[in-house]
Amino acid sequence: MTSKEKPQKYVYLFGEIEEVLERYDGDWESLRGLLGGKGVNLFDATSLGIPVPPGFTVTTEGCNDYLAADQNFPMGLWDQSLSAVKELEKITGKSFGDPNNPLLVSCRSGAKFSMPGMMDTILNIGMNDEITESLAKLTKRPRFAYDLYRRLVQMFGGVVMGVPDEVFEAVLTAQRRESQVEADSGLDADAWKAVTKRFREIIRSYTGREFPTDPYEQLQQATEAVFRSWNGKRAFDYRNAAGIEHDLGTAVNIQTMVFGNLGDDSATGVFMSRNATNGAPSLEGDYLINAQGEDVVAGTRATLPIRQLARDMPKQYEELQQIARRLEKHHRNMQDMEFTIEQGKLWLLQTRDGKRTAQAEVRIAVDMVDEGLITIAEAVSRVKTDQVDFFLHPQLQAEALKKVQPIAKGLNVSPGAAVGIIAFDPGLAERWAKEDGRNVILVRPETKPDDVHGMLAAKGVVTCKGGRTSHAALVARQFGKPAVVGVSDIEIDLDNHEMLVGENMVIKEGDYLSIDGNTGLIYSTKLPTQVPDFNDPYLIKILSWADDIRKIGVRANSDYPKDAQRARQYGAKGIGLCRTEHMFFQEDRLPIMQKVIVASTLSERNEAISRLLPMQRSDFEGLFRAMDGYPVIIRLLDPPLHEFLPSAPDLMMDLTDLKLRMQHLNNLKDVDRTLEEIEEKRTLLARVTALEESNPMLGTRGVRLGITIPGLYSMQVQAIFEAACRCAADGVDVRPEVMIPLVSHESEFNVMRKTLEAKAIQVMEEYDAKIPYLIGTMIEIPRAALTAAKIAESAEFFSFGTNDLTQTTYGISRDDAESGFLVQYLQDGLLKDNPFASIDPDGVGRLMKIATEEGRSVRKDLEIGVCGEHGGDPKSIHLCHKLGVDYVSCSPFRVPIARLAAAHAALEDSE
Amino acid sequence: MTSKEKPQKYVYLFGEIEEVLERYDGDWESLRGLLGGKGVNLFDATSLGIPVPPGFTVTTEGCNDYLAADQNFPMGLWDQSLSAVKELEKITGKSFGDPNNPLLVSCRSGAKFSMPGMMDTILNIGMNDEITESLAKLTKRPRFAYDLYRRLVQMFGGVVMGVPDEVFEAVLTAQRRESQVEADSGLDADAWKAVTKRFREIIRSYTGREFPTDPYEQLQQATEAVFRSWNGKRAFDYRNAAGIEHDLGTAVNIQTMVFGNLGDDSATGVFMSRNATNGAPSLEGDYLINAQGEDVVAGTRATLPIRQLARDMPKQYEELQQIARRLEKHHRNMQDMEFTIEQGKLWLLQTRDGKRTAQAEVRIAVDMVDEGLITIAEAVSRVKTDQVDFFLHPQLQAEALKKVQPIAKGLNVSPGAAVGIIAFDPGLAERWAKEDGRNVILVRPETKPDDVHGMLAAKGVVTCKGGRTSHAALVARQFGKPAVVGVSDIEIDLDNHEMLVGENMVIKEGDYLSIDGNTGLIYSTKLPTQVPDFNDPYLIKILSWADDIRKIGVRANSDYPKDAQRARQYGAKGIGLCRTEHMFFQEDRLPIMQKVIVASTLSERNEAISRLLPMQRSDFEGLFRAMDGYPVIIRLLDPPLHEFLPSAPDLMMDLTDLKLRMQHLNNLKDVDRTLEEIEEKRTLLARVTALEESNPMLGTRGVRLGITIPGLYSMQVQAIFEAACRCAADGVDVRPEVMIPLVSHESEFNVMRKTLEAKAIQVMEEYDAKIPYLIGTMIEIPRAALTAAKIAESAEFFSFGTNDLTQTTYGISRDDAESGFLVQYLQDGLLKDNPFASIDPDGVGRLMKIATEEGRSVRKDLEIGVCGEHGGDPKSIHLCHKLGVDYVSCSPFRVPIARLAAAHAALEDSE
Repeated sequence: MTSKEKPQKYVYLFGEIEEVLERYDGDWESLRGLLGGKGVNLFDATSLGIPVPPGFTVTTEGCNDYLAADQNFPMGLWDQSLSAVKELEKITGKSFGDPNNPLLVSCRSGAKFSMPGMMDTILNIGMNDEITESLAKLTKRPRFAYDLYRRLVQMFGGVVMGVPDEVFEAVLTAQRRESQVEADSGLDADAWKAVTKRFREIIRSYTGREFPTDPYEQLQQATEAVFRSWNGKRAFDYRNAAGIEHDLGTAVNIQTMVFGNLGDDSATGVFMSRNATNGAPSLEGDYLINAQGEDVVAGTRATLPIRQLARDMPKQYEELQQIARRLEKHHRNMQDMEFTIEQGKLWLLQTRDGKRTAQAEVRIAVDMVDEGLITIAEAVSRVKTDQVDFFLHPQLQAEALKKVQPIAKGLNVSPGAAVGIIAFDPGLAERWAKEDGRNVILVRPETKPDDVHGMLAAKGVVTCKGGRTSHAALVARQFGKPAVVGVSDIEIDLDNHEMLVGENMVIKEGDYLSIDGNTGLIYSTKLPTQVPDFNDPYLIKILSWADDIRKIGVRANSDYPKDAQRARQYGAKGIGLCRTEHMFFQEDRLPIMQKVIVASTLSERNEAISRLLPMQRSDFEGLFRAMDGYPVIIRLLDPPLHEFLPSAPDLMMDLTDLKLRMQHLNNLKDVDRTLEEIEEKRTLLARVTALEESNPMLGTRGVRLGITIPGLYSMQVQAIFEAACRCAADGVDVRPEVMIPLVSHESEFNVMRKTLEAKAIQVMEEYDAKIPYLIGTMIEIPRAALTAAKIAESAEFFSFGTNDLTQTTYGISRDDAESGFLVQYLQDGLLKDNPFASIDPDGVGRLMKIATEEGRSVRKDLEIGVCGEHGGDPKSIHLCHKLGVDYVSCSPFRVPIARLAAAHAALEDSE
Repeated sequence: MTSKEKPQKYVYLFGEIEEVLERYDGDWESLRGLLGGKGVNLFDATSLGIPVPPGFTVTTEGCNDYLAADQNFPMGLWDQSLSAVKELEKITGKSFGDPNNPLLVSCRSGAKFSMPGMMDTILNIGMNDEITESLAKLTKRPRFAYDLYRRLVQMFGGVVMGVPDEVFEAVLTAQRRESQVEADSGLDADAWKAVTKRFREIIRSYTGREFPTDPYEQLQQATEAVFRSWNGKRAFDYRNAAGIEHDLGTAVNIQTMVFGNLGDDSATGVFMSRNATNGAPSLEGDYLINAQGEDVVAGTRATLPIRQLARDMPKQYEELQQIARRLEKHHRNMQDMEFTIEQGKLWLLQTRDGKRTAQAEVRIAVDMVDEGLITIAEAVSRVKTDQVDFFLHPQLQAEALKKVQPIAKGLNVSPGAAVGIIAFDPGLAERWAKEDGRNVILVRPETKPDDVHGMLAAKGVVTCKGGRTSHAALVARQFGKPAVVGVSDIEIDLDNHEMLVGENMVIKEGDYLSIDGNTGLIYSTKLPTQVPDFNDPYLIKILSWADDIRKIGVRANSDYPKDAQRARQYGAKGIGLCRTEHMFFQEDRLPIMQKVIVASTLSERNEAISRLLPMQRSDFEGLFRAMDGYPVIIRLLDPPLHEFLPSAPDLMMDLTDLKLRMQHLNNLKDVDRTLEEIEEKRTLLARVTALEESNPMLGTRGVRLGITIPGLYSMQVQAIFEAACRCAADGVDVRPEVMIPLVSHESEFNVMRKTLEAKAIQVMEEYDAKIPYLIGTMIEIPRAALTAAKIAESAEFFSFGTNDLTQTTYGISRDDAESGFLVQYLQDGLLKDNPFASIDPDGVGRLMKIATEEGRSVRKDLEIGVCGEHGGDPKSIHLCHKLGVDYVSCSPFRVPIARLAAAHAALEDSE
């Protein structure tokens, strides 16, 4: 009804924020729809009393009505624009189209979402020959005036009238040649005058129309051009691709021009409200006296640090500080701003949240809590988990990275950077590192338990094969070694001590390599690194806040006392997984373990098992002491036995060698000894062959070993409880939790629990000690999850082995898939996430839900944790929080990340 | 209350059935608890008017009260026993303890459940010196009388008074020596008299007590001995093991003795109411005139066929026929009976349901329906599924089996018997079978796709390795070849063409072997077999009744038209699984398939794929024609590619051979050719190595192949629809269902469905035909079951691949486990069933339930079937019925079994 009487309001001055807010009941989202993103920011800053160059916005409704009316302004729009111009004249004291005191404006598009393909900017609207001449006289800067005019004609001719920019550029090139100057900055007023004349001739001959010299005509055509650009092909295609609706329309922002190049009382610059590198609370930025914004960015002149402005223009500097504080308070975030000082008057041109380093993020979050700007919860949610990772590993220096090209890319399986000389052999890696004190990168086709000493000696690890949970990846993460695996472009030629990268590049052993475990990129040079500090007090503060917020606990996967100590330093409250098999791979133990496996009689086997007992006991003692007061989950032996034995081909080669040696022996003693050796190898080979499995992942492992080799698990439990009793006698608060792996049927658990508990009780009786303990199981097989209620009848805790659970639930062998079809799936978008990186919520997550709910339905205080690699992955930690697990357990280096991610999950949940 | 006034009733005469029934409201289960199993049978027969020797039962309550009262008869028990004896005297006209007309009785225990360790039997109670002498005179058979007396003393002395039987046996041995006779039957009256005297002396010296000569004393002590034996150690242990409660107590049965050896008007025999071999409805049995029951069983005298009794004693024969009819009508089952004729009077001593062959079972079930004795439902439930199996396979003759010992035992993976000469090589097996027409048993360490031609040529298959779902087992079941796999006792020595069985036995290639696929036993001889007839009209009747009853459909797993025809003959209504990979293993196709795999360019690969097209098309045409009117599910290529390639070690050997050959070549053409061959092998080896997977079961198979080798599945779908269109043009009713295997995520299905459906539509347009079709998926990965609702959005059918689903749900590799830890699990009772034989209801079954319910929640008409090996397993079929799947699919030879099992499930469900 009113629309008939009074035209709709299409135009708002920047200062009219109250009016718009009222229209939308203070809903900023609708506001953004009406005024566009850029418009809203300008209204917002204006309302804060920040000196923003005055202007007005033509609404998106104006655009839509214009397009709907076959490209005719709807009633009232132009009249309102004219009134708004009048208001600008009032505010600025200048006059649009008045040669004696000309008001110049810019015209920019501004849709709800920023969008490529939309018309960008036309500056200096409001000029013509007469005004330019006058401006030249008034400012006494003819070059300044004619350059402004030239820019208007060029932008208007290109953007509004559709002349290709190359045509204008050709004129500029010709003019530079004629004036014999290198750059546009060398052209004088006359040159610009001549250029502008040519530009106008080009427009005429190209379009058959004249460049409009009437400022209002310029304004009208520019506004229409912005409207029309909403339906331009690029914008349309972009909206289709990005799923943005086509009926939103764009707003038009008309804003007064200001200039920083009007003399020594003018300036222009960019600055941050805080230090973006370390977060210190002082202004940080650069500026130039008598210059345009472009000059600061382009680096053609040496900029001055913002602090110097305090001396050059103390009033304006003080104003900048106030503006920064006001904007920080308003946006509750560090700001990144642009300003111009026009003949002493400060104008803020732009503000946005500032980008910063991880270190700065953390400090700023803590400082802002202290300053009362944000809450603790906000501070914690603001710090991202990968920012914490930064504090744990050296990083390649960002500056240096800009100047080099990577030679290959693999999977980024263990974060941080490493730089060193290439060794292809773990023994060589160890020698170079230990004896020569050099930094080494171990490069292998893939790694095996045998290679661990070389991995430990190296600064970083690269493999050609293997996936995100390959041996190399697991061990590297465990020990915080940066690693890149599955680099299929690398082919190692061990004979020639070199590797081929791609088709042509050959790199020798001993050459330098830099690897980035965060990105998976590899560089064939020695790049500089920077080492952050985990003891950063701000980080410690953030993490302790996170600890207060989070609902789930964080433990660490640690196999050795040193690991456990580190885990504790990083904030782990217990060990969620100690993999006892890693202890058996140690050099002094492997031969005994092999005896256990190849023993031909029961007593021979038991004898070997009993030799492992004291070793295991001392392992566990170390862990218990390191984790005094916290629970320690010890997983009984898990991997298939053949992992402890040499491979069949290796053994066959050994046998061949021995037989050849026989031909050259010349004393009977040697013959006897060699015959004995042959016999030994033959026995070993027979056992290796017998243990071969087509699918070892689904084979005789975990509890299946415990049941088929009765003495083994008993020995481990004896060692655990002997260690516990000894520690307890020294006053250590010991809390062992015995974990039986790979259970798929409750009877497996029941039969083992009976035997093992009897052994535990026997040991405690011998030591006359009473140790609080739990016996529980891994849930890593779908059937275990599906029958959790039955298993929980006798299991006191569950620990989800999400790596294996993912393998069986998905039917994917991680060893094969991550260098196979899974890569293609992820590339093609068939899968959004690698299920070995983040827990698959629909499959694995559902099984975890079933197990958690049904396990607890039988045993209310069932302790439930996650000890797969996922335990350190933020996405997975969110899922775990939702499922209500008691804790996650991850490698020591992921513990801080897990603490923070768990807090994020709790915060998200409470929203 | 009444118990104080009137003693409890502890004793019931056989005729007092009404009284007991009333006490328990006709509940026979309670009756059995009170009178014991044996007692109930005697009461039952008596109530039918069958001439059972009269007697009475002391109840289990009597036993319990006796034991509770510290081995004292409760009030009334003995008085009631005495009254019952009086009743027996009345009925028989004899008198207990009266030398002139002595009544003799037996005393037997009879608990609710039959139980070893309980006191068995004391015969001839009621004799002493005087009565024996009198009986000798009365019957004019002194030897008869003294033998009876001797037996009483011996049994009483042993069972009641606790003298070890060996002592009595020693006396008998001595007496035989003294009398110079071979057997006890040679001893005369005087000898027995002397023996009895010695027995009584032994009792006296052994126990310090006299053999009680008072008949009532004998009865009382015998009753107490039965009571006490309830708490004997053996009975107690047995109850513990069998889970029988200890407070049930045992009843005591006192029954009049009758004698078949009192002259030519006496006889004794056993007979069945129908022929136990073929089920024909006529009496079948043996008897002897003037003999004891033992004589008939012992075979010391030649027995007469029961039919001859019609001539010898026509009246009694007629009576026997009437009794058989009456008992069959009462028990609604064929009866196995014992009788005695004492001086013309017929007594029935025992009746029970008769054991019979599968053939007899089937015929009797059908006949009894015709006779109105049982319902169709009863007939169907009475025939067991493994009895149907009997009609499908030759069997080793039962008689012959009694005389031989097996040499080894393996897994009974494919039923039926096979007899033939051993071949260790599939080529040799084929040659001997085809060229020489001999029956061959193929014996292999394990089988591979390459060996199938030898398996098909052989009568039966034996392997040393592999489990219930090994290649050998699967193929053997598929083709109905009897097979025994995983015979670990056999070691094949290919070089010497012999095999070692156990430690010592060596068997040569070409020697005879008989194998029993029903039991897994192997015999080193040529055993006779018998071939049953699947066209047995009674079987056909039973199965057609089963078809009317069952609620779920039965399809067959068939890969070839010939298979499909057989499946149809056996009653399959469609194909539930056609494994297209089997087609690629055929000799003419394998090289092309290998080209597909090793192709170095896309066009090379596509060329090879297109060569497979016409072959596949003709395969499918055959199937569609054979299954005219029924659905045919075709599974697209499933196995990992390396299965189509030779093994790496084989290739390396080939390469070595070729290199050696190079040294002896003397013309350049040969050199060139050999070099080319080497290059080919080398390429193949590289591809084989690249395709190696640590866990192929979880590797690049199924839909993962379809996605990574785009053209392959399209070609198969093209072949399917071209075949379908051609058949349809000939008037065949074609219903193809395209099955995408190994889906674990809905996007895998969606992306394939889109491509394949487009291809199908294109073909149908080309042929201008409209074929009704479905596109669906295997559910064989836990995640697929857990996300069934998402998959069912675009899948039109589910088929549970329960083999793989069991592997992944349990985390068990069947190839390894069935010859590994799973065997121990089953032996130790950790698992009750092999989950690869019967679907695990708690794990796999639960996933099936989730998938079925949630799949149908999205798509009501979702077709759901089972195509794993479990589809032919009765237990699994019961589960499938409960889950409400639409059909099961199994190998053609299991189809009749599945039809019956499905009916059983429906019957059980309706109960």
